[in-house]
Amino acid sequence: MKIALWQTVGFPGDVAANLAALEETAKAAAAAGASILLCPECWLCGYNIGDAARTLAEPRDGAAARHIARIARENRLAIVYGYAERDGADVYNAAQVIGPDGASLAHYRKTHLFGADERAVYKPGERLEPPFAFGGFKVGLLICYDVEFPETVRSLALSGTDLVLIPTALTPEYVSVPDFIVPARSVENQMHIAYCNHCGVENGMSFLGGSCITGMDGKALVSAGAGEALIVAEISGEARKLAETTYPYRSDRRPELYGQIVAKGSH
Amino acid sequence: MKIALWQTVGFPGDVAANLAALEETAKAAAAAGASILLCPECWLCGYNIGDAARTLAEPRDGAAARHIARIARENRLAIVYGYAERDGADVYNAAQVIGPDGASLAHYRKTHLFGADERAVYKPGERLEPPFAFGGFKVGLLICYDVEFPETVRSLALSGTDLVLIPTALTPEYVSVPDFIVPARSVENQMHIAYCNHCGVENGMSFLGGSCITGMDGKALVSAGAGEALIVAEISGEARKLAETTYPYRSDRRPELYGQIVAKGSH
Repeated sequence: MKIALWQTVGFPGDVAANLAALEETAKAAAAAGASILLCPECWLCGYNIGDAARTLAEPRDGAAARHIARIARENRLAIVYGYAERDGADVYNAAQVIGPDGASLAHYRKTHLFGADERAVYKPGERLEPPFAFGGFKVGLLICYDVEFPETVRSLALSGTDLVLIPTALTPEYVSVPDFIVPARSVENQMHIAYCNHCGVENGMSFLGGSCITGMDGKALVSAGAGEALIVAEISGEARKLAETTYPYRSDRRPELYGQIVAKGSH
Repeated sequence: MKIALWQTVGFPGDVAANLAALEETAKAAAAAGASILLCPECWLCGYNIGDAARTLAEPRDGAAARHIARIARENRLAIVYGYAERDGADVYNAAQVIGPDGASLAHYRKTHLFGADERAVYKPGERLEPPFAFGGFKVGLLICYDVEFPETVRSLALSGTDLVLIPTALTPEYVSVPDFIVPARSVENQMHIAYCNHCGVENGMSFLGGSCITGMDGKALVSAGAGEALIVAEISGEARKLAETTYPYRSDRRPELYGQIVAKGSH
């Protein structure tokens, strides 16, 4: 299965422009043989747009979702995108997967919000989601800061996830995330991770770029530089099964020793 | 505080020769201003010596421990060493810290045994140990494979540990451990990690070398190549306190979402 990552500056605050750009990118991803196209965090409305995210937030089955469903159908492509989700009075930093038939395959609300700006706009999600089946993989979703906590990816792995898709909005000072954290998550859980970032500058905030898809040895199968990029890599379930004999982390765990990790107030 | 790591081929199966070499290395570490000298996993008897580890196993206050205590006192140096520990009929893959006054400061039995060879000789430890205070740090112990499980280092961090000392015996195919896992553990827990490996070939088993002391950005403060080395780095508690504002992982954790990590049979 081939996965495409779309690292883009985007059009902050301009949903229509982002949807128009997606039309072109989805065609390119499909032409490259990709089955999934992954977009960055809050790609639909922009990441660093302050309170405007409230105004631009849409329900998960809103107009933009229907637009994206049409693009997915036309290109026989699953599209995974970050957006500001409206649910009544609440707004979430969310990711949705629209399958190649245009139906929603999965949805996730970011559980670990980053910093005061996100907390001012978004309500945190209250659960990690079980994986959905796609292309022979069990696929999980996280968003940006979530992956920096080993507990999130481990929890997905224990639910049977073997591929995690992560829209992100990472600034340059956190380069240790693609350099060390994402590779380590792949190794310690023996899974692929696709990590799709913004690039360029958005309302004064610089993004790192550096989107990547990692192999189970932690090395990038493909990675982007600092600018706009569509990167594609093929992953194989067979490789993952082989790797489990070299790194039997799941069977060698000792959950009876890890109680402190879930203790109330364990900070 | 300065920490010295002794990456060595050693003398597998020859405790007396290893103790003699320690005399010289402890002098060099003290001359370099180190307060702690860290030796590799099962350094005292050798790592790849099969059943001989049973014969060479010593109680934690045995003759070798007393010998090491004298060296520690003479050099005003804490010495941390991996050894095969005898406790009645049981043998553990253990690490002990002898303080500069010659008294035992801490002791740990490897909880995550690696592969059939270790399991044939050693009984696993049954707990992670709380940190001990030394040089203004709270210092924890793990051994080799333990660090590859994010739960171990996280548990130590939640117990207040801010420096983890890890004797190891890592072979070259697991290069992702010093390349990705150890750096990620440092970043995600905002702590220093000292990871001290064997080098060279021991009874047909090759070791990677690559010992390192990481900073809280995951980068090595100092690292060794493939051969014998004594490497020294200075660490500061002030830097750690500053870093917590950039990476507030401990306060941003959501332990209420991590229940699956401790579920029985969660492999």
